[in-house]
Amino acid sequence: MKGITYPKGFSAAGVACGLKKNGDKDLALIVCDNDANVAGVFTQNVVKGHSLQLCKKNIENGVARALVINSGNANACLAKRGQQDALSMAKLVAEKIKTESSKILTASTGVIGVPLDMNKIENGIDSAYETLCDDGTDAAMAIMTTDTHEKMAQVSFKINGQELRIGGMAKGSGMIHPNMATMISAITTDAKISSKDLDIALKLCVDKTFNRISIDGDTSVCDKVVVMASGKSEVVIESGTSEFDLFVEKLYIICEKLSKMLAADGEGATKLLTIKVKNANTQDDARMMTSAIAKSPLCKTAAFGNDANWGRLITAAGYSGASFDPECVDIFIGDVMVCKDGGGLAFDEEKALEVLKKAEVEYIIDLKNGSFDDVMWTCDLSYDYVKINGEYRT
Amino acid sequence: MKGITYPKGFSAAGVACGLKKNGDKDLALIVCDNDANVAGVFTQNVVKGHSLQLCKKNIENGVARALVINSGNANACLAKRGQQDALSMAKLVAEKIKTESSKILTASTGVIGVPLDMNKIENGIDSAYETLCDDGTDAAMAIMTTDTHEKMAQVSFKINGQELRIGGMAKGSGMIHPNMATMISAITTDAKISSKDLDIALKLCVDKTFNRISIDGDTSVCDKVVVMASGKSEVVIESGTSEFDLFVEKLYIICEKLSKMLAADGEGATKLLTIKVKNANTQDDARMMTSAIAKSPLCKTAAFGNDANWGRLITAAGYSGASFDPECVDIFIGDVMVCKDGGGLAFDEEKALEVLKKAEVEYIIDLKNGSFDDVMWTCDLSYDYVKINGEYRT
Repeated sequence: MKGITYPKGFSAAGVACGLKKNGDKDLALIVCDNDANVAGVFTQNVVKGHSLQLCKKNIENGVARALVINSGNANACLAKRGQQDALSMAKLVAEKIKTESSKILTASTGVIGVPLDMNKIENGIDSAYETLCDDGTDAAMAIMTTDTHEKMAQVSFKINGQELRIGGMAKGSGMIHPNMATMISAITTDAKISSKDLDIALKLCVDKTFNRISIDGDTSVCDKVVVMASGKSEVVIESGTSEFDLFVEKLYIICEKLSKMLAADGEGATKLLTIKVKNANTQDDARMMTSAIAKSPLCKTAAFGNDANWGRLITAAGYSGASFDPECVDIFIGDVMVCKDGGGLAFDEEKALEVLKKAEVEYIIDLKNGSFDDVMWTCDLSYDYVKINGEYRT
Repeated sequence: MKGITYPKGFSAAGVACGLKKNGDKDLALIVCDNDANVAGVFTQNVVKGHSLQLCKKNIENGVARALVINSGNANACLAKRGQQDALSMAKLVAEKIKTESSKILTASTGVIGVPLDMNKIENGIDSAYETLCDDGTDAAMAIMTTDTHEKMAQVSFKINGQELRIGGMAKGSGMIHPNMATMISAITTDAKISSKDLDIALKLCVDKTFNRISIDGDTSVCDKVVVMASGKSEVVIESGTSEFDLFVEKLYIICEKLSKMLAADGEGATKLLTIKVKNANTQDDARMMTSAIAKSPLCKTAAFGNDANWGRLITAAGYSGASFDPECVDIFIGDVMVCKDGGGLAFDEEKALEVLKKAEVEYIIDLKNGSFDDVMWTCDLSYDYVKINGEYRT
């Protein structure tokens, strides 16, 4: 598994520069051999981190050479100092790889409101540049905050006999919720694709993957998904063609894999929850309902406690804002039907417990009211979530 | 403290009829000597408990003699059986006090989807009727679910030399969030006031009290606030008069007291959090922002951990949907200013820790952007919240 270095034209590194007190890796660098076409999706939070703001600005040029990401510090809410530090990060990388600062994408994640230690960043960029290699694992590790493991994915496929590759990495794991690019993810490909088409492809995928996961309903000021295309394969991808559709399909697989990994590794998570709403009257109804259930602390603590408390599912459905007939609702926990036509069933509690004890649990709410479905991924809410977030800065 | 029996004309009882496995009190009865004028505010959840549905229907008549509430079972999602049981509850009380069933208000709170044991309810109503008295404490205890103590409030005041009384009780404590009457509360008064004016007064108060508290953002299918006026005092209250304004002011005090008690006793709470947003551009902006912060698991776990992590406050503000200028935001934790004009300050961490360790903590977000304020009450998110809700049905 090489992740972001799997497609041709990319090298990467991940080093420890001292931003994380425990000495873990905290600076990642991804470099493309040539100008890559790029696209991105960014947080919709009104407050935006300074590194993210610079990244957003530079990505508008449509080309970039490198992406530098530090963890341990969000570089956010620091006024002019934060802006200046983001610019310096870009400049330091640009000098190394001999390009313009405007071709460097920047990202920061971690604590808000504490100035970056630029000496550490500078040393980090030095040693990351020295250790650039064709394995993306260190980079994937260096972007982690409360994640328990690195998250990578890759896929190759052929178009007209020519091989094409997509790779990716992502970090969570709290503060994730849709209505924006939900965390930090970097995706690479060696397709020959314009930044405009890359943007179309990315948005199609993000809408159904990174925007359909929730850990705790909070959304960060630094969330983003960035995709870089080196053009090093022989395959040209243009929107409106069947090749484009296939590219989107494969990009979707990468985005979905990373999204599910993020949800499953939510802070303190003991299991991955898949929330499916079926046969809603409108797409909005379906999405409001999956979202309400995925965010509900009561549904998520019940999942942690292996409690088949479907009353909490129908309650969250009821306040979601979706319109539906409560007397038509069927609910399944895995393959155990627990509610039919809005009324509780005398279901097999032992069997439900077995389902709930698994690492992946599916809740299905069938509204029998229309033809629109939605899926969201989330995790349970455990003691460790409270522990991790009660002590985050210490 | 007599609570709901403090106003003239009311008696009450609270008994254990066996719905709660631990033998605690679980059935409350409040009886008015005569037909009381009544008003209520009910859950906006699409799914509604059967006892609540019947209460809502009967309250439309504008008069009632009694309110019966059981805890330990929500009587919800049980189709015809649930409707029938709510009707039976009303009928059993009506027979005791010799009135029509339509003058009995019903309420149930607890687990969803499990049929009520009507033998227990019948025995409970029998012994509650036998023990009706002028102390509301047992009734306040009998409506508790995960509350750690009963919640009562009372006030007396004079209008034109005549004394007037308002009393109340409430139960929480999870699943509380605005956009509806947020839990079960019963309020009584001996004012001579029409059900129409009572309704106006109640809605004025609920909007700024019960609808401004949040425990976990979830909203139950059984939430309601009911107010009963015996008319036993000599004071006539009519809307549009200064007497009405004074009555609303006092009713507001009762509602606010009960609301703050509910927030402070949220499931697993170790402290009461008051969220104040100041100088927003619109009332909606202010409300969206208090609501986002009050619901944010990250803000609430930081409060539990006594962590002055104001970055989470500004982050929640940023995704709340409110429009504001991040570079104008000041943030205070108690009297410690931690952020000025959107930038972090080098504040005194020791002093902030002192503030955060108190039983009541205030967060103030000053947007310096307009003239609209809002206040919400909530609590921190602790290990015990997870424990209580992971094991609720067991």
